[in-house]
Amino acid sequence: MPHATKSEIRPEAEYDVIIVGAGPAGCMANVCLTTYGFKVLHIDNRPTTTEAGRADGLQPRTLEEEGKASLAKRMINQGVRVQEVSFWDPSPTAQLARTSRAPSCPDFIDVCDPYTLLLHQGLIERSFLDEIEARRAHLPADKASPAPHGGVFRPYEFETCSTDESQAYPVSASFVHADTKEKFTARAKYLLGVDGARSLVRRAISGGQPGDGEWQGKIRMLGDASDIIWGVMDVEVKTNFPDIMSKCLIHSKSDGSIMVIPREAGLVRLYVQLQAEAGPDGKQKHYGRDASEDICKSRARKIFEPFKLEFGKTAWFSVYQIGQRIASNYTLDERVFLGGDATHTHSPKAGQGMNISMLDMYSLAWKINMVEKGVADRSTLLPTYEQERKSIAEELLKFDKAYSSLFSGRSPKSDQLTADATKAKALGAVDPELFIETFKKNAFFTSGCGAIYFANPLNALPDSELVKNYSKKGVFNPEGSKLIAGQRLLPGKVTRAIDANLVRIQQEVKMNGAFRIHVLAGEYGKSKAQIAALDKFIDSPSSFVNLYRPKSGVQSAIVYNSHDTRHIEPERGQREPNYNPFFDFLYIFATPHTEWDIEDLPYNARIYRDNIYSDDVYDRRVGKDAKAALHTKWGISTEQGGIVVVRPDGYVGAQVPLNQDGFEALNAYFGGFMSGSQKASL
Amino acid sequence: MPHATKSEIRPEAEYDVIIVGAGPAGCMANVCLTTYGFKVLHIDNRPTTTEAGRADGLQPRTLEEEGKASLAKRMINQGVRVQEVSFWDPSPTAQLARTSRAPSCPDFIDVCDPYTLLLHQGLIERSFLDEIEARRAHLPADKASPAPHGGVFRPYEFETCSTDESQAYPVSASFVHADTKEKFTARAKYLLGVDGARSLVRRAISGGQPGDGEWQGKIRMLGDASDIIWGVMDVEVKTNFPDIMSKCLIHSKSDGSIMVIPREAGLVRLYVQLQAEAGPDGKQKHYGRDASEDICKSRARKIFEPFKLEFGKTAWFSVYQIGQRIASNYTLDERVFLGGDATHTHSPKAGQGMNISMLDMYSLAWKINMVEKGVADRSTLLPTYEQERKSIAEELLKFDKAYSSLFSGRSPKSDQLTADATKAKALGAVDPELFIETFKKNAFFTSGCGAIYFANPLNALPDSELVKNYSKKGVFNPEGSKLIAGQRLLPGKVTRAIDANLVRIQQEVKMNGAFRIHVLAGEYGKSKAQIAALDKFIDSPSSFVNLYRPKSGVQSAIVYNSHDTRHIEPERGQREPNYNPFFDFLYIFATPHTEWDIEDLPYNARIYRDNIYSDDVYDRRVGKDAKAALHTKWGISTEQGGIVVVRPDGYVGAQVPLNQDGFEALNAYFGGFMSGSQKASL
Repeated sequence: MPHATKSEIRPEAEYDVIIVGAGPAGCMANVCLTTYGFKVLHIDNRPTTTEAGRADGLQPRTLEEEGKASLAKRMINQGVRVQEVSFWDPSPTAQLARTSRAPSCPDFIDVCDPYTLLLHQGLIERSFLDEIEARRAHLPADKASPAPHGGVFRPYEFETCSTDESQAYPVSASFVHADTKEKFTARAKYLLGVDGARSLVRRAISGGQPGDGEWQGKIRMLGDASDIIWGVMDVEVKTNFPDIMSKCLIHSKSDGSIMVIPREAGLVRLYVQLQAEAGPDGKQKHYGRDASEDICKSRARKIFEPFKLEFGKTAWFSVYQIGQRIASNYTLDERVFLGGDATHTHSPKAGQGMNISMLDMYSLAWKINMVEKGVADRSTLLPTYEQERKSIAEELLKFDKAYSSLFSGRSPKSDQLTADATKAKALGAVDPELFIETFKKNAFFTSGCGAIYFANPLNALPDSELVKNYSKKGVFNPEGSKLIAGQRLLPGKVTRAIDANLVRIQQEVKMNGAFRIHVLAGEYGKSKAQIAALDKFIDSPSSFVNLYRPKSGVQSAIVYNSHDTRHIEPERGQREPNYNPFFDFLYIFATPHTEWDIEDLPYNARIYRDNIYSDDVYDRRVGKDAKAALHTKWGISTEQGGIVVVRPDGYVGAQVPLNQDGFEALNAYFGGFMSGSQKASL
Repeated sequence: MPHATKSEIRPEAEYDVIIVGAGPAGCMANVCLTTYGFKVLHIDNRPTTTEAGRADGLQPRTLEEEGKASLAKRMINQGVRVQEVSFWDPSPTAQLARTSRAPSCPDFIDVCDPYTLLLHQGLIERSFLDEIEARRAHLPADKASPAPHGGVFRPYEFETCSTDESQAYPVSASFVHADTKEKFTARAKYLLGVDGARSLVRRAISGGQPGDGEWQGKIRMLGDASDIIWGVMDVEVKTNFPDIMSKCLIHSKSDGSIMVIPREAGLVRLYVQLQAEAGPDGKQKHYGRDASEDICKSRARKIFEPFKLEFGKTAWFSVYQIGQRIASNYTLDERVFLGGDATHTHSPKAGQGMNISMLDMYSLAWKINMVEKGVADRSTLLPTYEQERKSIAEELLKFDKAYSSLFSGRSPKSDQLTADATKAKALGAVDPELFIETFKKNAFFTSGCGAIYFANPLNALPDSELVKNYSKKGVFNPEGSKLIAGQRLLPGKVTRAIDANLVRIQQEVKMNGAFRIHVLAGEYGKSKAQIAALDKFIDSPSSFVNLYRPKSGVQSAIVYNSHDTRHIEPERGQREPNYNPFFDFLYIFATPHTEWDIEDLPYNARIYRDNIYSDDVYDRRVGKDAKAALHTKWGISTEQGGIVVVRPDGYVGAQVPLNQDGFEALNAYFGGFMSGSQKASL
């Protein structure tokens, strides 16, 4: 048996979590788990990061969460922004004419980055690995273990795994170095299978075999493939087609469709429908997954006619068959979890796959964190992963099926165009009202903002068990509220009192595994009694802050976990702030910060000195007349105030009034899934 | 004589430009000249970049120009933002009370980054060196020469220089390796002395000697020093002073003043007035430039009373004496130029010095570029450097003198405070109206936006020779215009037609040495005839575009110089775009881009495909009713249109109407300082 060279770092025997696959989903899992302070083994069967091509679209909602990790900035600097989509169809007077245009992310969607960001998957992976490397440096000694740059061991092929709950490290996994063929075994508390559509982890736990469908067994891939074949390439082109710098959907009269996506580094991505055409023998020639790059280029030239299309260097080329499939289960034992392409596959053209895959892991990681740190109930929290993420994937598949058929068919209304080209152009080729409505609905979903979770212990919706059965009515989801549990927090700008910086409230607490408790305190003078009552509540031993504490010294994360400022608190010496790392409080007053003083707030507010704000920043979406734009946007009265709980993944969890009823409701909410420090195992 | 080690890179014998000093001004000179494609020798007598402390404030206007080079993004990510200033004074009821607050960059100043960015000079220098290194890679072979990272040779001590106009490389400079003492001589076309307040370059050309004032000779340092001594330190502190994260101006009753500046990396900068105090012998003890760090800390604690001030690690400490001095000349022969601290010194507390120093070089570099590329008249263009930059420095010194005395004195109105603390606090300790007016005026200047150039051939102001003597009246500076020649271009957002991206118009053309000709084309339909006339004008041999061309193959810059797109122009084959690299055209229509087509524009507009926009983006400063915010902000009618010429350094040069009179006026404007390719020497 050949051995790895001595200089090569080799995996150890025990980890907290093993991640199989280092695509965007695996990288997201690693950056999250490293941030939370876990010892991670990350393997990938490829010798390097992606060189070119593959997934390339980052949606506004994904950028929003990435923004917190400052990863987004790095990516935004490298990528290209798609802000508009052009639709090209045959017209009565032209072989191809622009029949409509629409914003990629319409203005009604309230996001900081209203565009799709395009850059190739390798650049995304490398940004992640640099970030993981930087955070690994913060790991405590007992969690740090030698690993290659970014923490990914390559090329290691996963072989199999098994779970034994009687062990301290219940999961055992075996894998092999792809070059040296050296075999390894490691144990862990969890294993995450994010190893793609042909997941070996899925096969291992479901018991399927190659050739057996997609290795079906206990886990089945539901759905099916169509017979529609597409080629996809990242190429340099020269063309006189006017919209080559925009995203375009081109339907030719009889040669099929193309989607054009502008790319970084002077590239263009072309999705080319490989429709059957007359072969040299006069018979219809159908293309399969073995269609060549030259065939793809010649089809593209045909669809582009009458525009010229000259090809330069090809960076990447691939052929795929459209299909939509979803895994029947994301986990069988809540130890080995699947996510990303291992659980859902679909057509790539809506730019959704990578986003949903990354957010799968973003959603799972904080749940594992809370369970392992002993503050959450395993049997309540971990099942929400499959429940929440599978429903998102199901929505995606439904959407993708409709979207793909739109592409692969001809423009449905192109025959109905009038001979009046100006009118046709002004109206667009498709019934504009229906079209815009459909596009809006889809745009909300494709932006990521329409990904909605249903009622469960984490989402205190009116139809959740908690709210339905709660003795006091109208405490959860108070009247007037414009936020919805299970949906993303609406963003907004506020003034940070400590330094008068204009900041985005949704980015103020970085990804640190904590629930964010937004205390919307309304007008300064009017909420004094309520803020004092909250202070008293937080101090009481039966408040969620004190009930659900981790063991002494356990943090929610190894970075972004400090409330240490350069301030000497007046009480210092008599009383040390006793932060609970799983709850970060933010106080937002409707009154400008120049009219009140942090020093006059109660102790439990003052200790979150970095997170005290005034809601006095103009918001175009709210209008000039609203004095407190964020209160208004969130539907919270400046007379009464209110509390908004946001989950560690940026979703609204619960909303209650700023009074004793509200405080008790929060106890009930957190009591539904959290637990005391006794169970801490980490 | 010791020799440099073999592995060490040694300077060559001939360069286009020699830069002495690698502080922020020298780095700015290098990044500009490298961008323009010059062979640069850059030396500095320090062994490394600045380790800590020194200059630390980047103002909005500086960030604006840096933004174009994407350097600003890097710096913004590392720095701390100051958005508010707090004023603390004795009050009738408290030893120290916050008497007023004011925004650092008030809202009436129209900038993208409305704050002062704080980060230490070393971080700024390192950002520059990385950027210079990246751009050096684009230099053509005959301009590339081996150099250390960022192009700076260290530690090299400048010795002397002389000019001989009969030589192809008129300047000869000698310098010595500070460690090995090896001597070098190099020739160049220009030498830039940005080697600080005790400039050796200044001494060399002015003939002064040490001890002879500030080495006065042909160049005198005008102005004088006060006897007020200040200490400055970057330190970690713990305090119960509430505003430690803000910029604060603290005047104690009788112990002097402090300015607090929040800094990156948990540091605070304290400027501490070292006022005379009673010594152990009962006599007044006056501190000099030898005052110790401990004295400075003890004074600081005293001024902060009754607040506690505990000191942690000190990153940097220095003592300085307030004074304002300016060089009588910035150059004697327009071959050796001085800039930065070598030409103006003043108190550091307004955060101006580094900004004005950097912009000195930013302003000089493009002028040298145009002269050396043979498209501008040396005897007209080069004298504008001293004329423009000296007037800015004079303004700075005037301002600094007033500002410094404000600091060093007691709060002038503190005795007039009423006993009513609430009223005093609400009103501020100073007469609020006078105070706010003064602050506004100063804020406009300190933001950098108030730095104004006077009439000269570059600034077609009403009192310039060109405009005064121009035969047709009312052509320059048409009625209604809100831009002013010699002032910065007001920023605005527009939609880029080619990809519908929302962009900042002022950042669209990066620093490439070109004049930017903004064609504000008003409503699409209405300006057709004028745009066609402009097209014809540009084609005529007597247009400035054709009159002032560099020699074939000469570019204005080695980066940002391409209009190459992935588009095949319809005329390709019959006609190749003949860009003049010293003029970039931008076309901005008041009509949304969805209502017109780039393909329908005339040839000379269409070839600037990347720089065609619609003015349809909401601007808070203009209001919801204005349909074309940028036209409105710049004071240009959407019925008539207009042309705005912006100099390569972001200053407005000339404004004319969008008609034949306007086109001819542009010929007159550029004819005032530009010249044909015959003189090209590069």
